[in-house]
Amino acid sequence: MPILVVGSVALDTIETPACCRKDVLGGSATYFSLAASFFHPVRIVAVVGEDMPGQKIACLRRENIDLQGLEVKPGKTFRWRGRYEPDFNIRQTLSLELNVFKNFSPRLFYPYTESPYVFLANIDPDLQRAVLRQVKAQRLAGSDTIDHWIRNRADALLDLLKEIDVFFLNDTEARLISQYASLHLAAKWLERKGPKTVVIKKGEHGVLMLSRGKFFSCPGYPLEKIVDPTGAGDAFAGGFMGYLVSCGGLDDMDIRQAIVYGSVLGSFSVESFGPARLVTLNLRQIKERVRAFKKLTHFELP
Amino acid sequence: MPILVVGSVALDTIETPACCRKDVLGGSATYFSLAASFFHPVRIVAVVGEDMPGQKIACLRRENIDLQGLEVKPGKTFRWRGRYEPDFNIRQTLSLELNVFKNFSPRLFYPYTESPYVFLANIDPDLQRAVLRQVKAQRLAGSDTIDHWIRNRADALLDLLKEIDVFFLNDTEARLISQYASLHLAAKWLERKGPKTVVIKKGEHGVLMLSRGKFFSCPGYPLEKIVDPTGAGDAFAGGFMGYLVSCGGLDDMDIRQAIVYGSVLGSFSVESFGPARLVTLNLRQIKERVRAFKKLTHFELP
Repeated sequence: MPILVVGSVALDTIETPACCRKDVLGGSATYFSLAASFFHPVRIVAVVGEDMPGQKIACLRRENIDLQGLEVKPGKTFRWRGRYEPDFNIRQTLSLELNVFKNFSPRLFYPYTESPYVFLANIDPDLQRAVLRQVKAQRLAGSDTIDHWIRNRADALLDLLKEIDVFFLNDTEARLISQYASLHLAAKWLERKGPKTVVIKKGEHGVLMLSRGKFFSCPGYPLEKIVDPTGAGDAFAGGFMGYLVSCGGLDDMDIRQAIVYGSVLGSFSVESFGPARLVTLNLRQIKERVRAFKKLTHFELP
Repeated sequence: MPILVVGSVALDTIETPACCRKDVLGGSATYFSLAASFFHPVRIVAVVGEDMPGQKIACLRRENIDLQGLEVKPGKTFRWRGRYEPDFNIRQTLSLELNVFKNFSPRLFYPYTESPYVFLANIDPDLQRAVLRQVKAQRLAGSDTIDHWIRNRADALLDLLKEIDVFFLNDTEARLISQYASLHLAAKWLERKGPKTVVIKKGEHGVLMLSRGKFFSCPGYPLEKIVDPTGAGDAFAGGFMGYLVSCGGLDDMDIRQAIVYGSVLGSFSVESFGPARLVTLNLRQIKERVRAFKKLTHFELP
């Protein structure tokens, strides 16, 4: 059974120190789906406006991606424009037009309602819960968030966490929601709120995970060049969920491997503007980088 | 044969968000020696003023530390006063008094001149070279630096690198000296300048190492509380050099293990003001945390 992802499909305008690209295909559901589809079938629930050019979303038309839930509505597509500072660690949102995404309130239809695996990208936590309630046989639910929902909808987000298996967020968000400076303490605090697995993404510095009381930490894959970090977190979540569902298990080692696959997908994602690198990528290249990641981080006890 | 360390023994005044401590024993040679002494004998070459209270340096009087090279000179001890911002990632130097350290120009005597293992803490690169020239049977030389020498003595530092086996520096310094934003590229650039092993310290984010063409990366050990990061880099170098010399080998896995031991010593160091935690620490606790570090970072390929 496919993974259901609910999120955005957007048009991004991205400014980096090196250049500016207009109307690049973006959105959390786009990055998540492309990354997850290397491992497992995905179903997208999202909305675009009538202005979305067919050729822009052509890259989502692949065997493992089901686009029946991608609605086209009268009006304009969700647009984001952002700028990255030279070290890529600071991102400034220059403009945000929700457009047709403003009234996004997903209604699942059969067989989407039977999806056992669900990923809720960063939308309003009440909407995320509304989606979960429509899914009948949920076996693994992941969700992401952004600082906006932590600042403005913390109670709804904490309610959602009670129903979530894997909660993804970045280091700044983990500190913000828990009020702990230590990510170690922040992860423990979040685990007490419900999720079996807490995944704190630290960008180029890797990931800290707490799962059923056990910590796992891995560095970022060192890259010679970062072109565009947009969507890396969603590509990470896609690689993680796709791998985890495909491997069939949920034990500690399966989840650690999923973190590594997620990290590798995230590392490919930043190598080009928008999702371009995810589009040209293949499974052989992914496995090669996973092996390189193992070599990079491996040590034996003396 | 012991490890020779040339650096500072100082009195630090440290302001953290939680409190301020005056005249704490500090200096690169102090942290390095305490950390390295768990694994291998150390010889300190440094200078203090007549104002250094005997009981402050009592913690350095331990079996594995030889203090014959610690000179007491007329005048005042090197003093540093610094302040850490709430997240500990930004450190501000409030005052710096070189005092007797101003004219520090180490003259090695026998048997110090026979030391096969040398660590040159962050002093003027010309002084670092002058020390190296006095050592007859050098088999492993490590050196550290700070941004000041990169900005003001880059040529001398590059000359030194030709004679160094292991070069330690932090991420900001690696970017500054190489002019590469990517630490991956910075490490490659530094390796071309001479050192067989380049160790880029990233504070709480761990370490990126390049050694004979092979990268190794490990995250920081996640801590619930950081009390004082002063000296963590020198404690890291001490753990690294001490372990590496004691294990007797220099192959890829020995060096990876040395990075892990260094990381563990650095993680203990930040748990108290000054070197206090290194003083109470024992080898059993170090080995326990090394095992925890392995559990934290271990994964197998699917």
